[in-house]
Amino acid sequence: MRNERLQRIERLQERLRKQQTDGCMITQNVDLYYFTGSMQTGYLFVPCEGEARFFVRRSVVRAEEESAVAVEALGSFREFGKRLGELYAALFQAAGADSKLRFAAEFDVLPVQQLQRLQAVLPAVEWIDGSLLIRELRMIKSAAELSCIREAARVVDLAFEEALTTLRPGMTELELMSGIELSIRREGHIGLMRMRGYNQEVITGMIGAGEAAAVPSYFDGPAGGQGLGAVVPQSVSRRPIQSGEPILMDIGCCIDGYVIDQTRTVSLGPPSEDLLQAYEESERILRHVESMLQPGAVCEQLYRQSLILAHEAGLSDHFMGYGADQVKFLGHGIGLEIDELPVLAKGFSYPLQPGMVIAIEPKFTFPGRGVVGIENSYAITDNGFEKLTVTREGWVQLHL
Amino acid sequence: MRNERLQRIERLQERLRKQQTDGCMITQNVDLYYFTGSMQTGYLFVPCEGEARFFVRRSVVRAEEESAVAVEALGSFREFGKRLGELYAALFQAAGADSKLRFAAEFDVLPVQQLQRLQAVLPAVEWIDGSLLIRELRMIKSAAELSCIREAARVVDLAFEEALTTLRPGMTELELMSGIELSIRREGHIGLMRMRGYNQEVITGMIGAGEAAAVPSYFDGPAGGQGLGAVVPQSVSRRPIQSGEPILMDIGCCIDGYVIDQTRTVSLGPPSEDLLQAYEESERILRHVESMLQPGAVCEQLYRQSLILAHEAGLSDHFMGYGADQVKFLGHGIGLEIDELPVLAKGFSYPLQPGMVIAIEPKFTFPGRGVVGIENSYAITDNGFEKLTVTREGWVQLHL
Repeated sequence: MRNERLQRIERLQERLRKQQTDGCMITQNVDLYYFTGSMQTGYLFVPCEGEARFFVRRSVVRAEEESAVAVEALGSFREFGKRLGELYAALFQAAGADSKLRFAAEFDVLPVQQLQRLQAVLPAVEWIDGSLLIRELRMIKSAAELSCIREAARVVDLAFEEALTTLRPGMTELELMSGIELSIRREGHIGLMRMRGYNQEVITGMIGAGEAAAVPSYFDGPAGGQGLGAVVPQSVSRRPIQSGEPILMDIGCCIDGYVIDQTRTVSLGPPSEDLLQAYEESERILRHVESMLQPGAVCEQLYRQSLILAHEAGLSDHFMGYGADQVKFLGHGIGLEIDELPVLAKGFSYPLQPGMVIAIEPKFTFPGRGVVGIENSYAITDNGFEKLTVTREGWVQLHL
Repeated sequence: MRNERLQRIERLQERLRKQQTDGCMITQNVDLYYFTGSMQTGYLFVPCEGEARFFVRRSVVRAEEESAVAVEALGSFREFGKRLGELYAALFQAAGADSKLRFAAEFDVLPVQQLQRLQAVLPAVEWIDGSLLIRELRMIKSAAELSCIREAARVVDLAFEEALTTLRPGMTELELMSGIELSIRREGHIGLMRMRGYNQEVITGMIGAGEAAAVPSYFDGPAGGQGLGAVVPQSVSRRPIQSGEPILMDIGCCIDGYVIDQTRTVSLGPPSEDLLQAYEESERILRHVESMLQPGAVCEQLYRQSLILAHEAGLSDHFMGYGADQVKFLGHGIGLEIDELPVLAKGFSYPLQPGMVIAIEPKFTFPGRGVVGIENSYAITDNGFEKLTVTREGWVQLHL
């Protein structure tokens, strides 16, 4: 893993040079882990050429054990600019007195206060947004990363099957979810799921039965769920699950830092015929998109194709949410975070590449009745794809 | 609650006027909930005088149900500046052509990208940091907020006592924690704990037994825990719990959005005499600090007093962490987030006021052996304090 992390830094340096950027200051915990192997707090400085260095605030001892990159105690932050100037003298001198150095930082997550602190100690630096740079690097997963996601897929499948054995009419979404959370936690779920988007939170996914699944939500997904109240307006509610209604089980877990994301539709007893047909349409869309999953296919084309198929099935109004609350994507990258690149949506012209991992989730929302659909996670391979999700497909009808 | 939220906005407006600030743009989910009662995504604009308005991106329907403040669909973000100019014409005109309007925003959590988006649509505005303004308002809790924290205290006590009945030698910290998480979740824990600090994460607290508790950690607390690996370098590990060693159980939960934070020290069978003495010193410090807990007492004085007492006991080197990894505080505010104001630390000159809620956590770290201590949460009242934590005190020795 040490070499892999150093290669990641080299790839970042290549990108920096291409964009005439002199360096990158990485501060977010997940990005720090990606490049160094450590999540201790501090500043990872990656110059466009030469050795990167991880300036650690706390804990230095622990960072030294974990980091693939050379660690140095940050010490007084006021001296940080001076210290960088000493260590990277050539870089700072090359910029000269009249032109500023250009450093990239993660503007998508970096709070304004943090940038201001950096500006104060590095007045000779012009700061630019390096979010996309980093997110694009993270988009392509290594063999080691794929192994973690496969393990997460195994754990979530186990939890799903265990949960089905406990499902009874009258059970609440919260009760069903608490059992799943216990299963995944015992198997090593880290206790949280990471999401990059500002103000977005993800618990262990959502279980939404009947109308509760179809409630609109701030959550940036096709079915956020009703939640326990205005202070957690997504995921499970205390509504009792009833026979016959669709139970959307969109669940995930995080093993060794890597998340999986999958959805299955379940009911206690037989569902309504039209909902079952809509569910089958979601599987048809998934099969069709699978047939396009190979290097070179363009992300937004996959999304467009799903819109066409939903339209042909007469289900456009219900696809990926309902009415004003429809979301405009079909899938999203997963990895250390649940909202990685690429996104299967308009404006994302990325061609698929081997190593991308994408959760694809065609779903149909019926206000007052529920949400049906399926979600699998896939790795793009040299010739096509590997389905990472191992859970059985099809609408799961449990006997009453 | 509707009136309470409108009063909060009035208090914010008073503060804005005092600081010659023309308005405040609130975007963070927790702050949005605090002022509107809704956590849907969008922008809450609070002018220094007149009616606030919540511009909601998603879900408008849901925000309308939840919000105490008038809701308007955000629509195209490009038009947002124009729309604000129309709605708050007097405010925008008063600024005139040569002087900029001053708007505050939450620079402690607002990502740079988000500020840049606001700057683009509101070029006539100078943005300043309003974090402290908002955090100071949130520091004083209402009766309704205190009720939520009391309920969280009840839930975490229940989970603690249940967990003790399952504790056996050889059980891992992770197993013990998974049981606690199940208990609190069934009682309505929202599935996550919120923390404001950049890059800080909190799960459901930490359980650390023996040496695992004393491992240094990036986490901004006296005992972060070993964690499951570099990708979650805090909280529980898979280390089996052994007889006689101190088991630090620093746990919390979040009920109706409000967190509680408490710590107890437990062992299977009798502990070492010196660790027991150190534990008793932590209770003595807590009792002493309690005797000072009343309106007017100065936060940093409480911290200083604890340092004096730890020193007198000959335990300075072990207090609140060990060596370079000691943290420089004794307690912290809790509420919607686990890291609220005030902080009992140097530089915090706030006098205590009725309604403040503070978790106070004197702890002693012994590298290679463990951490011992206690943590209670308190509300400051008109005459003194209310202890919110209901769990029994004293080192809990379980029979083998």
